[in-house]
Amino acid sequence: MRQQAPAHDLLAPLHPPTRYLFGPGPTMVDPRVYDALSKPIVGHLDPYFIQVMQDVQEALKIVYGAQEASILVISGTGSAGMEAAVANFVEPGTKFAVFANGYFSDRLTEMAKRNGANVVRFEKPWGEVFSDAEAEDFIRRERPNVVGYVHAETSTGALQAGRAICAAAHDAGALVIADCVTSLGGLPVEFDKTGMDIAYSCTQKGLSCPPGLSPLAISGRAMEWLRGRTTPSRSWYLDIKLIHDYSTVSHRYHHTAPISMFYALREALLVIAEEGIEKRWERHRRSHNFFVREIEAMGLRMHVPAANRIPTLNTVSVPSGVDDGKVRKRLMDGPGIEIAGGFGPLAGKVFRIGLMGPLATEENVKFFLSEFGKALRAEGYSI
Amino acid sequence: MRQQAPAHDLLAPLHPPTRYLFGPGPTMVDPRVYDALSKPIVGHLDPYFIQVMQDVQEALKIVYGAQEASILVISGTGSAGMEAAVANFVEPGTKFAVFANGYFSDRLTEMAKRNGANVVRFEKPWGEVFSDAEAEDFIRRERPNVVGYVHAETSTGALQAGRAICAAAHDAGALVIADCVTSLGGLPVEFDKTGMDIAYSCTQKGLSCPPGLSPLAISGRAMEWLRGRTTPSRSWYLDIKLIHDYSTVSHRYHHTAPISMFYALREALLVIAEEGIEKRWERHRRSHNFFVREIEAMGLRMHVPAANRIPTLNTVSVPSGVDDGKVRKRLMDGPGIEIAGGFGPLAGKVFRIGLMGPLATEENVKFFLSEFGKALRAEGYSI
Repeated sequence: MRQQAPAHDLLAPLHPPTRYLFGPGPTMVDPRVYDALSKPIVGHLDPYFIQVMQDVQEALKIVYGAQEASILVISGTGSAGMEAAVANFVEPGTKFAVFANGYFSDRLTEMAKRNGANVVRFEKPWGEVFSDAEAEDFIRRERPNVVGYVHAETSTGALQAGRAICAAAHDAGALVIADCVTSLGGLPVEFDKTGMDIAYSCTQKGLSCPPGLSPLAISGRAMEWLRGRTTPSRSWYLDIKLIHDYSTVSHRYHHTAPISMFYALREALLVIAEEGIEKRWERHRRSHNFFVREIEAMGLRMHVPAANRIPTLNTVSVPSGVDDGKVRKRLMDGPGIEIAGGFGPLAGKVFRIGLMGPLATEENVKFFLSEFGKALRAEGYSI
Repeated sequence: MRQQAPAHDLLAPLHPPTRYLFGPGPTMVDPRVYDALSKPIVGHLDPYFIQVMQDVQEALKIVYGAQEASILVISGTGSAGMEAAVANFVEPGTKFAVFANGYFSDRLTEMAKRNGANVVRFEKPWGEVFSDAEAEDFIRRERPNVVGYVHAETSTGALQAGRAICAAAHDAGALVIADCVTSLGGLPVEFDKTGMDIAYSCTQKGLSCPPGLSPLAISGRAMEWLRGRTTPSRSWYLDIKLIHDYSTVSHRYHHTAPISMFYALREALLVIAEEGIEKRWERHRRSHNFFVREIEAMGLRMHVPAANRIPTLNTVSVPSGVDDGKVRKRLMDGPGIEIAGGFGPLAGKVFRIGLMGPLATEENVKFFLSEFGKALRAEGYSI
């Protein structure tokens, strides 16, 4: 006898299709990480879980190159990490200077405005980067309180060097927020060496873990500034003072952390540590170089000049006369390969192809390019 | 040859201890849900994942009793759901009336203030509830824009009836935010019948899933109000207009949803649907009644009067002369049972004992009470 609408007739058993995640993220996940995800949970105040959070923080210091920093992990995705950075370090009236050359710098702009900032932007076309001299000149002229830039811009494939930005910002007394969503784990971030003050990332790209958490690194001077802040952050959920206290200091309840996701992140970091972070970066660099050589041998072009490319996220220009959506649909419907297209000013103009984690090998690049070539030819491109 | 600090020597393999989660949450998880958690992910824009989100929304309508509502799932924990409710429906200058009788109404207050609200509070001691007449009188007198109350107050064990609150609020032209973090899945929420406008919950209590997501139900009138809102929400990550568009309307990218957590939530909802939601509520009610009878037979007292108790979260008064922390430590160190103590005005005064999901059976209550009795006796209580 049914007592309510029979929802279980609506819900078939869960059988996700097999996908090869060659997009900008999420990326492929090591089976060990899935195994960790499915371990029985303990409570969020359990000494075992507190230890898991500490393990994660220690391992992240190595991946971030942030031995001097405070590490904390936000219970939300990379965008929650971005909002945590902005909501804690921007106050109403803060002058926030953004290096704007892609989608995620636009998102930073939007979040800063919602937190009451006075935003000034240095804009460039999507795919270009800022030279040291340009960065210094902008910061000296504007004298902002906070500077934001995107280390690896997922929407364009361009990598932005940060040292000149950070040095100029510090000269001006400003803090620097760096978006490391697409870089962390796949290439050097060098938080300390670069001079970043607040960096945020995600789990589902260079760390090869499912999405759901956002690791933050925060410099001593940023923590000091935060301790002196007198207005409350507009966000309680993302309040770094409270989260830092829960995760690192008193372990007093703030929110119920996503236990399973922390298990997964810990395992993903262990997988990385076993490989060795520098070897991992080299592997990503090698597979990127191989990819670019082969792409050019197919007569295709990279969107970003060689000096500024993100090794884990390749933007390949769509050849003229080819419909990128149809190519992507063929890859998805046939071998189950996911890649992404461009959007905004790059809509229809680039393919965004990730080579992250387990996929960053010559063998996987060959597999991908073979299928990519077939799909391109089927859509009229002659290689 | 090592190239960096050997993090994998710091990280032992992940072996979480076995815990019996008899606290206020997280609670025990069905093995099927762990299995779903570990299924290979697809992309966040993959048609399969879009379908998973839709399945979750449909199944949540039944659990919420919200056939008329819009359902969306926030990519954060229950506290993120609370902040989403507040940040979207409170503007600077909004008059926000809070029924304050526990910790989570204080958190609502804090979030409302951070979003610029003018907060007025009707305060009662922790564990008490508001009568219909009191609720009506408060709302008629204050004429707020938004009313907030906690359906099942996790910090006290008290259940607050909502119909009179919602009716009076609607008479005054106000929207009602209801905290259903501890009620959803374990007892009737009756969103439509009660007249709630915005309800939020979590996954790790009545839904018996690991923590990490927050399901929201939003009434038609609340969605209409939101569409007419001209100021942006202070939160971009929790912006309901954008999330609703991603999850339900255009499926345009907003953030990278935590795919694995959605798999788990879908499976948890399927487990619930197979049992039947009303049968599940009855099972929780029966195990609660059995628990109370046995507790009283042990000479112990419930903190909340019988009429106002949450059936899934029992607050038992700590007998005089007993140190609640020592009892909890014995339970954790011995059989691995987690329960919680009180905090704030109830620190040292109550045990908080959850009987949720798989634990809501007579057999599990007997197991718990046997161990609880042993721990109490060891700490000097004579039963």
